[in-house]
Amino acid sequence: MGEVTWTDVAPRDGLQNIAAIVPAEVKIRLVDGLLAAGVARVEATSFVSPRWVPQLADAGEVLRALGPDALPRLRVLVPNRRGLEMALEHDVRNVLYTIAATETFNRANVNRSVAESLADLDAVVADARQGGCDVDVAVSVSFGCPFEGAVDPQRVVDLCAELVARGAMEVGVADTIGVANPAGVRELCVRAGAFVPANRLSLHVHDTRGLGVANVLVAYEAGVTRFDGSAGGLGGCPFAPRSTGNVCSEDALQAVAAVGGVHGCDLEAYCAVSERLAADLGMDLPGKLYRAGVWTGARVEETVA
Amino acid sequence: MGEVTWTDVAPRDGLQNIAAIVPAEVKIRLVDGLLAAGVARVEATSFVSPRWVPQLADAGEVLRALGPDALPRLRVLVPNRRGLEMALEHDVRNVLYTIAATETFNRANVNRSVAESLADLDAVVADARQGGCDVDVAVSVSFGCPFEGAVDPQRVVDLCAELVARGAMEVGVADTIGVANPAGVRELCVRAGAFVPANRLSLHVHDTRGLGVANVLVAYEAGVTRFDGSAGGLGGCPFAPRSTGNVCSEDALQAVAAVGGVHGCDLEAYCAVSERLAADLGMDLPGKLYRAGVWTGARVEETVA
Repeated sequence: MGEVTWTDVAPRDGLQNIAAIVPAEVKIRLVDGLLAAGVARVEATSFVSPRWVPQLADAGEVLRALGPDALPRLRVLVPNRRGLEMALEHDVRNVLYTIAATETFNRANVNRSVAESLADLDAVVADARQGGCDVDVAVSVSFGCPFEGAVDPQRVVDLCAELVARGAMEVGVADTIGVANPAGVRELCVRAGAFVPANRLSLHVHDTRGLGVANVLVAYEAGVTRFDGSAGGLGGCPFAPRSTGNVCSEDALQAVAAVGGVHGCDLEAYCAVSERLAADLGMDLPGKLYRAGVWTGARVEETVA
Repeated sequence: MGEVTWTDVAPRDGLQNIAAIVPAEVKIRLVDGLLAAGVARVEATSFVSPRWVPQLADAGEVLRALGPDALPRLRVLVPNRRGLEMALEHDVRNVLYTIAATETFNRANVNRSVAESLADLDAVVADARQGGCDVDVAVSVSFGCPFEGAVDPQRVVDLCAELVARGAMEVGVADTIGVANPAGVRELCVRAGAFVPANRLSLHVHDTRGLGVANVLVAYEAGVTRFDGSAGGLGGCPFAPRSTGNVCSEDALQAVAAVGGVHGCDLEAYCAVSERLAADLGMDLPGKLYRAGVWTGARVEETVA
């Protein structure tokens, strides 16, 4: 059907949610590999206090090593104006800010009310514009909150519309704790899509309960063209200790491609990145395609030849 | 939308594709647990030569232990008339026979041409009818063959129609090596559905490349109501050594239920079965839901209370 803009968040959301502290060298190789595999954008790191997220304390080092050529395809998470300031010092062109769909989660996450976060966002957007930087906003716990339970989709739709009005470039509905199902994703994407232009609505899902790829597929068929995922499905969910992470990018890209989505990635190269990442981390990643190999539909004779 | 008939194949397809030889006691507990969790049917074992599949050499012992009350909800794989004879001796009411969609795979699997398998099936159906037993047929490698590559859907549709005409009760299109994608599943299910009555067409997928749940979802939305899966996603794929097994039953059932499918299973109980199975086998299973827990949408206060 159409072009898909995929963002790989393994270097940020993925690494942030595993216990290990990973050397900068591994992160740099990961980001470089993802860019070389053709993914549209990589969420490379975060400028957040190392006291909160020690895993990403080397943000500056990673960005410097990636160099200026990589910057137009990188996004960096910033929790506040201070984070944005640091990102701008590194010439970052695209940052991600998060606001929760529920008051309780927002307070637990950033110790502010949603209204306070929106006011802070205005300042972040203003500063970013001056610095020539786009601000994307993720609406966390859009499908369910660990503290407040089920979330009213209308509340999420209203917040999405508000965020667009306040200057968010991309608005992402995020299934932070991995409780979305295909019916809920379809409904929310259709409803949010009535208020957010198609090229600015994004879906961010975790595969916590095994529905990640199916959720991406139904969102794509409902008109969403922007997605987050992580190489090899790297990551976790702080609210489900034994669970896996973001939807696996290369697994989900197969599904999107099968129904006509054009993503520009080389899936063999993507799998090689995940394979290398698994080796670097010394652990199996939850993704499936990198272990089984891309199916080409070729006969054995052809493959052997 | 409608009622779904789920068959859990963990005790047969799942255990057959892992290296470990599992005590009969574990198998019996697994089948009993699945039946108690409310799954419509369990593929309990196979009467196949122990030289080929030593993992299932205890078929008779398992069936005797499960007892006559379980039999109406059990299915048993039989590779030939001799296997059927043994199944009938144990009062089995439903057997599964397999025929491949390609000549090469059929010969590799059962050392016969497809025509020879069809002739043998006629004899199996005749014997089974005399014994008051239904014969289901799985069309293996319906979406792709490790030897012949991509498979023409028309060939599969023709074979499905042929099998119905020859007395197969249920005809299952099987993605034996896990290469199906949502577009291919949708196409084949719609096309096969024109020749096979809706209550007799089934889908059997493996999650080898991470598309299992998405494939079940699109098939359900294309009108398929009968599915195979395995508890915890137990199993493997002999053609992809590091890959996982059948689509995870409880993960996929969530997706089907979300879009209106009625399956009659208690997903909490299903997860407990997978958890116990993982403990019995001493390994993590690939399924996600049993690790993360069923999402009830309840607030923390409600869950804690």
